[in-house]
Amino acid sequence: MAKLVEPHGGKGLVCALLHGSELEAEKEKAAGLKKVQVSARAKGDLIMMGIGGFSPLSGFMGRDDWKGVCENMQLADGTFWPVPITLDISKEDADAISAGDEIALEADGEIMATMKVTEKYEMTEADKKWECEKVFKGEGEDSADDKFWEIAMEDHPGVIMVMNQKEYNIAGPVKVLSQGEYPDEYPGVYLTPAETRAMFEERGWTNVAALQLRNPMHRSHEFLAKIAIEVCDGVLIHSLIGNLKPGDIPADVRVKAIEILIDNYFVKDNVINAGYPLDMRYAGPREGLLHATFRQNYGINNMLIGRDHAGVGDFYGLFEAQEIFDRIPKTGDAGKDLQCKPMKIDWTFYCHKCDGMASMRTCPHSKEDRVILSGTKLRKALSEGGDIPDHFGRDEVLEHLKKYYAGLTEKVEVKMQKAASGEDMK
Amino acid sequence: MAKLVEPHGGKGLVCALLHGSELEAEKEKAAGLKKVQVSARAKGDLIMMGIGGFSPLSGFMGRDDWKGVCENMQLADGTFWPVPITLDISKEDADAISAGDEIALEADGEIMATMKVTEKYEMTEADKKWECEKVFKGEGEDSADDKFWEIAMEDHPGVIMVMNQKEYNIAGPVKVLSQGEYPDEYPGVYLTPAETRAMFEERGWTNVAALQLRNPMHRSHEFLAKIAIEVCDGVLIHSLIGNLKPGDIPADVRVKAIEILIDNYFVKDNVINAGYPLDMRYAGPREGLLHATFRQNYGINNMLIGRDHAGVGDFYGLFEAQEIFDRIPKTGDAGKDLQCKPMKIDWTFYCHKCDGMASMRTCPHSKEDRVILSGTKLRKALSEGGDIPDHFGRDEVLEHLKKYYAGLTEKVEVKMQKAASGEDMK
Repeated sequence: MAKLVEPHGGKGLVCALLHGSELEAEKEKAAGLKKVQVSARAKGDLIMMGIGGFSPLSGFMGRDDWKGVCENMQLADGTFWPVPITLDISKEDADAISAGDEIALEADGEIMATMKVTEKYEMTEADKKWECEKVFKGEGEDSADDKFWEIAMEDHPGVIMVMNQKEYNIAGPVKVLSQGEYPDEYPGVYLTPAETRAMFEERGWTNVAALQLRNPMHRSHEFLAKIAIEVCDGVLIHSLIGNLKPGDIPADVRVKAIEILIDNYFVKDNVINAGYPLDMRYAGPREGLLHATFRQNYGINNMLIGRDHAGVGDFYGLFEAQEIFDRIPKTGDAGKDLQCKPMKIDWTFYCHKCDGMASMRTCPHSKEDRVILSGTKLRKALSEGGDIPDHFGRDEVLEHLKKYYAGLTEKVEVKMQKAASGEDMK
Repeated sequence: MAKLVEPHGGKGLVCALLHGSELEAEKEKAAGLKKVQVSARAKGDLIMMGIGGFSPLSGFMGRDDWKGVCENMQLADGTFWPVPITLDISKEDADAISAGDEIALEADGEIMATMKVTEKYEMTEADKKWECEKVFKGEGEDSADDKFWEIAMEDHPGVIMVMNQKEYNIAGPVKVLSQGEYPDEYPGVYLTPAETRAMFEERGWTNVAALQLRNPMHRSHEFLAKIAIEVCDGVLIHSLIGNLKPGDIPADVRVKAIEILIDNYFVKDNVINAGYPLDMRYAGPREGLLHATFRQNYGINNMLIGRDHAGVGDFYGLFEAQEIFDRIPKTGDAGKDLQCKPMKIDWTFYCHKCDGMASMRTCPHSKEDRVILSGTKLRKALSEGGDIPDHFGRDEVLEHLKKYYAGLTEKVEVKMQKAASGEDMK
């Protein structure tokens, strides 16, 4: 009998989240520990460690793992991992923390986890730059040697985030005490790997695809999901519900848009609408691999990778996130190697001559026959009420987005008025 | 590096076709051998043995292989094979042939092969009935115990063919002397397994799908091919160019229709239009498996299986040919087991609400929203000039088919006039 893919790392789901009396005891202990403020990114990483999404990681990476991951996408023991999962602290905090200490990690005023510090290592400017070049520098125009740093420090949120990290990293196993706001804010949508696996098993799915989403779902995304539905048992539409860059559409609006789309255009038995609690890193190809790695923990064996997956600006080649899957290291040990495979789909669009959705692989017609709309033009049309060409999105979804933009415009206007009247200028 | 799937049977391509001086010598010898007339079906089987399409078979099956194949789809040595490949001869011929004899096999006035007879075995009525029940009896209404035989002897071309076989089967390895009319009649379309494999390799394809066709290609077939193109390196559109049942559209008309379709609606790099020289057996699920088995020899690892694959009447469940892939015997020896996998696609159609092609797995709408046309209605519309609903087929293809039907109608009319005037009544 076919079975779901095993979690990554060969150790089952590694979940650092405590429950019941163990949780209560650890919370009590945590109150007395030294508190370290962690970033929004680290908060998401902690929750993923909590629920097994980052199996087999049980804590933040030490220097050897960090180096191996940056250099050739392997932890020190050879296990595949494409993006560093590290925790930065200030020099001040570092001076007060030594290997062996237990500390509490706090974000948004909540103690998220405790951590047994096993290692503390300096991250010099050179270290951070090296990490950025390994992880974020791609084959796109903006990554050209002579301009990468200049453009990235302006326009690459991932690079900016790493370069703004504090002076030290600390490593060590964590005990996670909270899943943050996600269970309350996204009931039925925020699902843990154990939960998606149980749902897949209940539906009899063993060959499952995931569609990564951080944008509203238009016809082209719908098309990707539906190709996967034709050839797999089902598809997990898996939205990032952590933080994005400013100007992107918030998760609740996107999740609702997907719900509307599924209600009107999908067979519900074959699709699940879910979210995961990470922030975008905008690492393009490396992030595509991260998406496949943690999806494997959710029970996914086919990761849909389209055009410019997890990209930003022109830092990556349009299909670099597909190509990198052909070059990842392999040890031959199924536990250590990535098992989740890419499902590579070309640039997709509605084509009038094809009389339906198509891709560059199937449509021989010309640009004029295709409905293609840039994100910028779409945002303008949605927010200013301009026309969106037929077949680009589903009416029900576009209506929902227009309402969001209408609300947003109002809010921005209100804010500007307040600012003008001095009310908001404390 | 990924590679094309190995031919079935673990022995490479087993090709019985002779070439050059060897061929000339064998032809000369054949002229002096006892000649046995073989059926159109056996002619196709011989050509497939000649070009490696039936690897690892090197001749017609003996009784043990026949029995194993009927009973549990395995040759006596455990190699997977789903449909008997046997050669029937009359009692008269049987009386004149003994194991050890060499004979010549003739079809359409041409000596197709020589055969070293290794075994001769009687096929009683009971044997043939048992074969038919094992191979042709499915889970459809027409296969119900109380009516299968009555309906099958009227309406199942495969059953009729087997029941009309002569009294004996002979087995033994063959040397094939001709590919019949195929190379001349279908230049560039009739391709051998070695040729398709070379073409795939030249294009860098290793993950290849095949679409089986015995009907003109409408939007639903195009959709199947295009799904495969999205997730594989390319697709072989592989038409049966042997014999069908009366009333079906001849191969040359179908092949031309596919060419027209590809010219107008496909990206040529991702598709190959080819044909194979077998007759339809209408064995539904078992024939679906045969299609996958010989496709593996052509270098195919994904066999598209849609609704009522290779079916006729109501003998099979609509998706029985998909389900049977989950129940085939496995020895654990990759050479002996079928490696070509099914790519199962649900019932497909154009849906007005979906605004494109869809399937029962992706479209939640109602029958009224879908463009569905029975084969009977379509033939009527094509031949009588009736309306074909929008989105059902491509205009260019439908025009071509209408011309064929117009020609056909003319021919029939001419014949009737001749008959009426007595010209044709000799």
